Amino acid sequence: MTNVSINTVESALNSYLEAISDSCLVYENVNIKEALSRILYEDIIIKTDQPPYDRALIDGYAIRSTDVAYASYSDPITLKIIEEINVGNKEKIKISAKEAVKISKGAFLPENADAVALPEDVQAENDTLKVFRSIIPDSCVAKLGEDMKAGEVFVKKQRKLRPQDIGGIIGIGYRQVKVFKKPVVTIIPTGSELVPIDVEPDEYQIISSNGYILKGFVEQLGGVGRISAIVNDDLNQVRRAISRALEVSDMVLVSGGSSSGSRDYTLKAVESLEKSKIIAHGVSMRPGSHVLLAIVDNKPVIGLPGHPVSNMTCFNVFGKPVLRKLAGTPRSFWQERKDTIKLDAFLAKNIKSPDGKEDYVRVRLIEKEDGKIMAYPYTGKSSFLSTLVKSHGVIRIPAECTGLYEGDRVEVMLF
Amino acid sequence: MTNVSINTVESALNSYLEAISDSCLVYENVNIKEALSRILYEDIIIKTDQPPYDRALIDGYAIRSTDVAYASYSDPITLKIIEEINVGNKEKIKISAKEAVKISKGAFLPENADAVALPEDVQAENDTLKVFRSIIPDSCVAKLGEDMKAGEVFVKKQRKLRPQDIGGIIGIGYRQVKVFKKPVVTIIPTGSELVPIDVEPDEYQIISSNGYILKGFVEQLGGVGRISAIVNDDLNQVRRAISRALEVSDMVLVSGGSSSGSRDYTLKAVESLEKSKIIAHGVSMRPGSHVLLAIVDNKPVIGLPGHPVSNMTCFNVFGKPVLRKLAGTPRSFWQERKDTIKLDAFLAKNIKSPDGKEDYVRVRLIEKEDGKIMAYPYTGKSSFLSTLVKSHGVIRIPAECTGLYEGDRVEVMLF
Repeated sequence: MTNVSINTVESALNSYLEAISDSCLVYENVNIKEALSRILYEDIIIKTDQPPYDRALIDGYAIRSTDVAYASYSDPITLKIIEEINVGNKEKIKISAKEAVKISKGAFLPENADAVALPEDVQAENDTLKVFRSIIPDSCVAKLGEDMKAGEVFVKKQRKLRPQDIGGIIGIGYRQVKVFKKPVVTIIPTGSELVPIDVEPDEYQIISSNGYILKGFVEQLGGVGRISAIVNDDLNQVRRAISRALEVSDMVLVSGGSSSGSRDYTLKAVESLEKSKIIAHGVSMRPGSHVLLAIVDNKPVIGLPGHPVSNMTCFNVFGKPVLRKLAGTPRSFWQERKDTIKLDAFLAKNIKSPDGKEDYVRVRLIEKEDGKIMAYPYTGKSSFLSTLVKSHGVIRIPAECTGLYEGDRVEVMLF
Repeated sequence: MTNVSINTVESALNSYLEAISDSCLVYENVNIKEALSRILYEDIIIKTDQPPYDRALIDGYAIRSTDVAYASYSDPITLKIIEEINVGNKEKIKISAKEAVKISKGAFLPENADAVALPEDVQAENDTLKVFRSIIPDSCVAKLGEDMKAGEVFVKKQRKLRPQDIGGIIGIGYRQVKVFKKPVVTIIPTGSELVPIDVEPDEYQIISSNGYILKGFVEQLGGVGRISAIVNDDLNQVRRAISRALEVSDMVLVSGGSSSGSRDYTLKAVESLEKSKIIAHGVSMRPGSHVLLAIVDNKPVIGLPGHPVSNMTCFNVFGKPVLRKLAGTPRSFWQERKDTIKLDAFLAKNIKSPDGKEDYVRVRLIEKEDGKIMAYPYTGKSSFLSTLVKSHGVIRIPAECTGLYEGDRVEVMLF
């Protein structure tokens, strides 16, 4: 057994994030139509003023406000309708004193006009228009450059692009954008008892499933997940698999082979590779205390325990922030809220947490008739896949806390 | 102009959801590996007890607890190690009185053994094992069926499948699952001033962008978004486009052509189609009061105003719940929290809302040093694409509320 140094979750994670250099952050050009949920690599700058001309905001009549400054219901002012302008009309039109133009919403305002009169404030008959109210300048008009000015930053880099960002960027004339390359994450399932999904397991075998859980999370976080072939519990095979994975990936997750048991091969395999550095082996958390955080050839390699619950917990605690850094972490707090969705609930049972470890307790949530949300903790064994599926989120109990009581208000991270 | 009947948002939405029949909800079989984020169509039932045999939870020694009932440090009990069992070992092994087997984590327990002794409680030398403590039955053992029993419901239908659900379903031996078919939503951009993204617009033209916003939302909600060719402001063309779209879609969104102006073609087009029914035309909300909610041939057809802000607001208020119904709405409240992410903030400015309409006000969020989140309302014109991009979420002000004050606590729906 190797010497397990004990780190807190926070210190281990901070050291790990610091050790991962920014240099691996590269970009690619993508068609803006394909850029949904990608992370923007550079600021998007407005090219031309928007709107590109004074525009009518409603269907009405373009007028000169000075002409109708004294109009009233008792004393309407009569203008001459000289033309009609529809959206997409390409002819340049100009009005003179006491003239008006019928105009449709979105159309280009004629030269000299400075406002649009609402249909309810006028009466049109053939080519005469009676105006019953004074109209202030710029009424119902979007002025040139009022929305956006050329040279302004439209979308800041590192935003995770939302549907409306895509539409906006298309609207201002971009057809491609620079985004962070998606980090490629290779997942290596290890364990002599594992069989691939398309093989019928015999009584003593287990279908390899952790890889699919990790792949799903990787993809939700904006990476590309690749699951390698299953590797037996054999030091040389594990080493070769990591080495090969590093050639084609930005990050490697070794699933299984990190535990206190005799099958703890990941550490030995990583140590035997060139340019490897162990950041932490063993963290004071539960489940998942035997996680291995390493860097090989400038790339993060994480050894995750094989039990499903420990596996997923370690990925969420360490893999997720690392992957977000590689993917170009959106920095704004409101976008981070979308990546980690939290919810307040009341604990339905006491939880003990005696031993100075940070505990991650799975909970099932039930909404009561009064809208109160109750969190039922799962104390099932970490080898049990079912609790991952049956639970809705996780509560973190800090190392210094010795437990929580029934009725306590808790923050649940949905997963 | 058509007669606009005024409905509240709630009544219009409820009537619309009721009018959409469940009959269009069909399923398809997909490979479980491709089922991430799909909505489960039927319950997943456990096929065989899990674990399928009594299993060691640690690396240790399988023993019979009765043999060591009186063991102590002063008076250890000696057993004979007859064998070693590794994970994936296929030989059936049986122990007798005073016998033990060295066992690795996850391996099958030998017949007659009922517990696993921890390495720290024993001392092994060649084939003899000294046990220093009594061991209670079932210690460090996962019993057959302890995790899940055959016939139990493992995942309920209508869950939106998470990574761990995929892993779990693979783990219990499924290779394909029934999921709701993804609703196909055709988006019809209308407007004579619009040009497609790959055409250089002249001074009077606008690049069609609403469709990409809608397509992005449709896909985030689990649908398939198709953008049709741009349709001019012409009744016949709009009608033909809707009719063709209905042939290949489960839902149609007409973008533009629903307003108070002269270009209000969607209503006329829908009314002229067979088997059409208008549920609401005009809703007391702002922006977006001219939305059209219709059913044609049992499929929802929504007419959205062309201004980007109204367009997106109407889609969020009406299109989203309708699409979720078609897609097989996950019913659990905790999954809904993931679809509509809310956040508490403090209003940074007064907002007036005088006229009995439900207001949807875009806000930009700023996190202050003390962690307080301030919401800055945007009062920009609804024709301005930029406010959609610059804002982070939206506040709903109910119709009966006449406004909100600076400092008020508000709930922001992130978008």
